[in-house]
Amino acid sequence: MNEFQNRIAKLQAGFAAEDIQLMVISASDQMRYLTGWLEHGHERLIALLVPASGEPVFVVPAMNVPQASKNQAGIEQIIGWTDEIGSEAVLASLFDKFQLSGSSPRILIDDELAASHLLTIQSLLPNGKYFAAGSHLAAQRQIKSDEEIISLTAAAHLIDEIFEEAVEILRTGISEIDVQQYLLDCFKRKKTSPSFNPLVCFGENTAVPHHSSGERTLKPGDMIILDIGCTSEFYASDITRTIAFGEPADPDASSVYSIVSKAHHDARASIKPGITAESIDSAARNEITSAGFGEYFIHRTGHGIGISTHEPPYIVQGNKTLITSGMCFSVEPGIYIPGRFGVRIENIVTVTAAGVLSLNAEPEIDLRILPVK
Amino acid sequence: MNEFQNRIAKLQAGFAAEDIQLMVISASDQMRYLTGWLEHGHERLIALLVPASGEPVFVVPAMNVPQASKNQAGIEQIIGWTDEIGSEAVLASLFDKFQLSGSSPRILIDDELAASHLLTIQSLLPNGKYFAAGSHLAAQRQIKSDEEIISLTAAAHLIDEIFEEAVEILRTGISEIDVQQYLLDCFKRKKTSPSFNPLVCFGENTAVPHHSSGERTLKPGDMIILDIGCTSEFYASDITRTIAFGEPADPDASSVYSIVSKAHHDARASIKPGITAESIDSAARNEITSAGFGEYFIHRTGHGIGISTHEPPYIVQGNKTLITSGMCFSVEPGIYIPGRFGVRIENIVTVTAAGVLSLNAEPEIDLRILPVK
Repeated sequence: MNEFQNRIAKLQAGFAAEDIQLMVISASDQMRYLTGWLEHGHERLIALLVPASGEPVFVVPAMNVPQASKNQAGIEQIIGWTDEIGSEAVLASLFDKFQLSGSSPRILIDDELAASHLLTIQSLLPNGKYFAAGSHLAAQRQIKSDEEIISLTAAAHLIDEIFEEAVEILRTGISEIDVQQYLLDCFKRKKTSPSFNPLVCFGENTAVPHHSSGERTLKPGDMIILDIGCTSEFYASDITRTIAFGEPADPDASSVYSIVSKAHHDARASIKPGITAESIDSAARNEITSAGFGEYFIHRTGHGIGISTHEPPYIVQGNKTLITSGMCFSVEPGIYIPGRFGVRIENIVTVTAAGVLSLNAEPEIDLRILPVK
Repeated sequence: MNEFQNRIAKLQAGFAAEDIQLMVISASDQMRYLTGWLEHGHERLIALLVPASGEPVFVVPAMNVPQASKNQAGIEQIIGWTDEIGSEAVLASLFDKFQLSGSSPRILIDDELAASHLLTIQSLLPNGKYFAAGSHLAAQRQIKSDEEIISLTAAAHLIDEIFEEAVEILRTGISEIDVQQYLLDCFKRKKTSPSFNPLVCFGENTAVPHHSSGERTLKPGDMIILDIGCTSEFYASDITRTIAFGEPADPDASSVYSIVSKAHHDARASIKPGITAESIDSAARNEITSAGFGEYFIHRTGHGIGISTHEPPYIVQGNKTLITSGMCFSVEPGIYIPGRFGVRIENIVTVTAAGVLSLNAEPEIDLRILPVK
């Protein structure tokens, strides 16, 4: 069995304990993880049906059959549906074949399946019990193989390199979207692609965690946030760096940076196998709260990373998932003071039995101040 | 009321006839259509709840509140959820506020909502009746205002222009991805963005309707398909052109082109207000079938276009939607002979009371043969 076949076998092996009869995987990163193949069907159904035992079946538009047959899991049952027949009829006959009709099957649904497709499945199997598949696949996906960690590390090194190149072009008058465009060109030159749209924030825009980069130009005294990532062999990277363009205009910028830096390192220092995901969030949050900025830390501390840029484990209050060796995730505390500035520091780490390793270069301990040019 | 407020009012006015209590809009083109605002939340819930009457409510991660408050529909109720509270608790309290809990509300769900969010909603309102919202919004969205048609026309002209520029760079030895990259650069230069990843197929790859452009290089005798689109003011364009690079190596290429060309024009000639969408598909299909190539026309004849590149009305068998003035859609019959070549010809048309107009330049009636260089 190859790696993909192993993943499917392991998934199916987990169905019995919860009496699961079927899992429906959509055209998502889950499909790439399980089969090495992914094509987005948009409004057209592309799905992988994984029964409790036996070979999975692809359901794809007729025109995608040649591509799906190149999947790396060696799945040979690929049912193409035409506009005349429709995907619903194909699903209905497969549900019959899997002997699900008429019973009350327990079915796992890919979190990302479009609601319209779920509603169709529910109408075909009205007595079914439906559950989000996320946590089932997550249990597997969140523990990376050595091969996966090698790809994540390659992606991490690449984005570190790209960050340093981007710093070089920062100068008075350049706009956020100019820098964004430079980054996109840089990705191309290095034969990689963005794992998400690069985020470039200047000045007061650094206070908006998911700011859309715009025409704002850089001026001396501005804080700068770059939140960027790229891919290697379909695996993602994701870092955030906060720097100042000349002496920061805001008198609190350096001290707030130091608080976030300490929170970042406290959180990382807390990581070891056996603790809960939420305890890492607490480590970062306690530092920021005790410094008096708790209300300005308005997001979770981190997210797992792999084929998806955001995937389990989420480093967030309420997540009692136990951290184990092989997990890879971001540590990215932040403080955002509306109308003034924000600071976020993000590295990707991987957990080992011996402790935690950063896949990225180390962020500056104290606020890095670029010379004005 | 502005255009966005009108759209919401019109939508709500349609709820009574089917006793709908709520519509849940996801971070999709539907959200942009109704509110002028769209941000993808990825695994984080971003939703617009539209009750049967009264102002809709945005549910967004706390950090997206500032952006959502800039929506163009003037919606002021924007509930930000934090990782501590979670989106589920916010939904639960809103369902109480809308007095949906404990009853059997009829709820429309955005087709593109992630299944995980639908499963959460279903667990909060287990007695709810859930329906795909697609057809409700489609009824509105598929009939374009003059303003929308102006944007679609601008996008159409732009892609016609880009196609002609791309033709200039076709030469022996250039690869599919080289041309794809040229197109992406061209989009940037013209300050537009792709409405989908540009499709470039050479030779035998033209026989695969959704081929992924690769390293295949162009050689004399090859057929070429370019299927490309861009945007103007968020509205999409989409054309397909099939041309030959020198005298086609396949002796049937020219005659097959002529059949598809005739099917394309037959289908367009059949369009007028009052006919069904499927009858347009029949017009194209009859031509191709009677020429003996029916089995090689493996997709529908067309799709509506607007903010989404693919949206209703779908020009497909089984769709009995009546064509009306203001509809805009593609007409794109094709013939694909596996291992040899394919032909597809696609223009966007708009329906008027006086007949149908093409938004794009006219495709060649006979196969265009480029000089080899």
